[in-house]
Amino acid sequence: MHSNLRIHIENDPATPSLMLDEQALRQRLNAIPGLSVAISVNSTGRSESIGHNADILLACRKLNIDEAKAANPNLRFVQTISAGVEAYLDHLPADVSLANASGVHAAKGAEFILCAALMLNFSIPHFVTDKEHCVWAPKFGGTIAERKVLMLGVGSIGSAAARALRSQGAYVIGITRSGAPHNDLNESYPIERLDQVLDQADLVVCTLPLTPGTRNLMNAERLARLKPGCGIVNVGRAGVIDYQALEDRLRSGDLSGAVLDVFPEEPLPVAHSLWDCPRLVITPHCSLDDHTTYMNACLDIFAENVGRFARGEDLINEIDRHAGY
Amino acid sequence: MHSNLRIHIENDPATPSLMLDEQALRQRLNAIPGLSVAISVNSTGRSESIGHNADILLACRKLNIDEAKAANPNLRFVQTISAGVEAYLDHLPADVSLANASGVHAAKGAEFILCAALMLNFSIPHFVTDKEHCVWAPKFGGTIAERKVLMLGVGSIGSAAARALRSQGAYVIGITRSGAPHNDLNESYPIERLDQVLDQADLVVCTLPLTPGTRNLMNAERLARLKPGCGIVNVGRAGVIDYQALEDRLRSGDLSGAVLDVFPEEPLPVAHSLWDCPRLVITPHCSLDDHTTYMNACLDIFAENVGRFARGEDLINEIDRHAGY
Repeated sequence: MHSNLRIHIENDPATPSLMLDEQALRQRLNAIPGLSVAISVNSTGRSESIGHNADILLACRKLNIDEAKAANPNLRFVQTISAGVEAYLDHLPADVSLANASGVHAAKGAEFILCAALMLNFSIPHFVTDKEHCVWAPKFGGTIAERKVLMLGVGSIGSAAARALRSQGAYVIGITRSGAPHNDLNESYPIERLDQVLDQADLVVCTLPLTPGTRNLMNAERLARLKPGCGIVNVGRAGVIDYQALEDRLRSGDLSGAVLDVFPEEPLPVAHSLWDCPRLVITPHCSLDDHTTYMNACLDIFAENVGRFARGEDLINEIDRHAGY
Repeated sequence: MHSNLRIHIENDPATPSLMLDEQALRQRLNAIPGLSVAISVNSTGRSESIGHNADILLACRKLNIDEAKAANPNLRFVQTISAGVEAYLDHLPADVSLANASGVHAAKGAEFILCAALMLNFSIPHFVTDKEHCVWAPKFGGTIAERKVLMLGVGSIGSAAARALRSQGAYVIGITRSGAPHNDLNESYPIERLDQVLDQADLVVCTLPLTPGTRNLMNAERLARLKPGCGIVNVGRAGVIDYQALEDRLRSGDLSGAVLDVFPEEPLPVAHSLWDCPRLVITPHCSLDDHTTYMNACLDIFAENVGRFARGEDLINEIDRHAGY
């Protein structure tokens, strides 16, 4: 048992709704028997006071892991409040464990994906573009029942979304690393067999993290093999899809529409051509994060992990540095 | 038993997907014991051949009831394939029964309302307007769980939509003529008590028919009493809401957004100011009709009613000409 731990918190002054409530953290940590902690907090957003010899770092902003390790040579565990951790992996010291906030996003993520899938099935991105041109051209298609949704990535968000979609009668085909059967899916395939099912999809939903195995997975060639009129939802990472090819296929009308929450550069630069791409709905990277519940859910994960770290147990949500998520 | 009936069908040549399949109708009518029918069909869209002394008229297009009665003096029953029948009521002869296609729209209508409600809760109409201005401004709100939806009208569509919304955790307050308790609602009130619950709504969903009792129900004064940030969905009839006042409140930002499927004039004229109203998603009156299943469902209702008419029984979906629906 590590009974004395130094914990450092890096807040993000740019998002006040995600500033750590130190009292709420202390309350949770006080419930761990035999543990005594010293907590330091930096809310400046600058790295000159990124902790002093902390054992544990809670990253509420994206930080430079080299700077963090230099300031805290004893650092052994970094907890993020994001799900995506690709920015940390290249430089993660061998003796530092990394855990993310996976699971926190499932409720909102599933509901957002349900919303985006229904929007595409009801041609909403298409009607949004028609409105810009004062065009009245009804489409009388059916419900999402029996429509085939190809779910790329079936983690906590993808599973919850699959359940929501299937409750509306959609048929969900999942692509995962293992391809193992999954209760929330109608069919599942390993990522190597993606090409076999690509042309069945009425909708493609991407919840994948960015890893060496997923980067550019939906390349121009695969996008070209989708059914005419297929729709795309991406709440994972932009690097999984070739966005230039995607934009081309939205402009040509080969794809019926897209709802994108993630972009190669964020905020999306004002000069970027996606801003005026037709049949595209842009949500500015906020489809998964529910700030009304977020920090409490993250603190639950963090406090659980501090207890496990102190007792020398396996962490929850620990990143496999080779798999990349 | 009226064993010999003359049935006339008025098709709408403008919507080929809703042209009556005469064989499918004959098949259904052949199943009615002791009934012999003569069927005439007019698919020109012009009224010079609107039947010759038919007993029953199936209106697959909006028609002039005076002309229809003049051509068919024995006319006793008109079946529409629409749900809204306000255009027929003023001139409906006393000896003609009218029945609509209520119920046919429930599955798609409920899913569309779920979609529109989630869109408003996720600020989609707002982000659509931000995209036009290349603005990146995330909003990190929560799910629709515990949000209060005020459902104006709880017929077959409203009931099905209430169930879908409650399956996502929303709290649904229904406004009906009687205000009687309803299994699909959390609370229900008669239309006279609307003002008591207006300011609780996070979303207002209108599925009301247009009747003397619903015309201009959501007038400027009531729209002004909605919570700042409230969203509006209308799949009922435009005349139930003061659209000029609604547009003003969308432009001012007092309302967070709207999804409108019905308009005072359809198609919405190119010069209409709603086309460039911000935070408004326009669907061109197609949120309820699923043409992949529509005519079969209408034919089921019609064949049932032809049998009932022949046997002298009460019709299903018969319009109460005083209530107006």
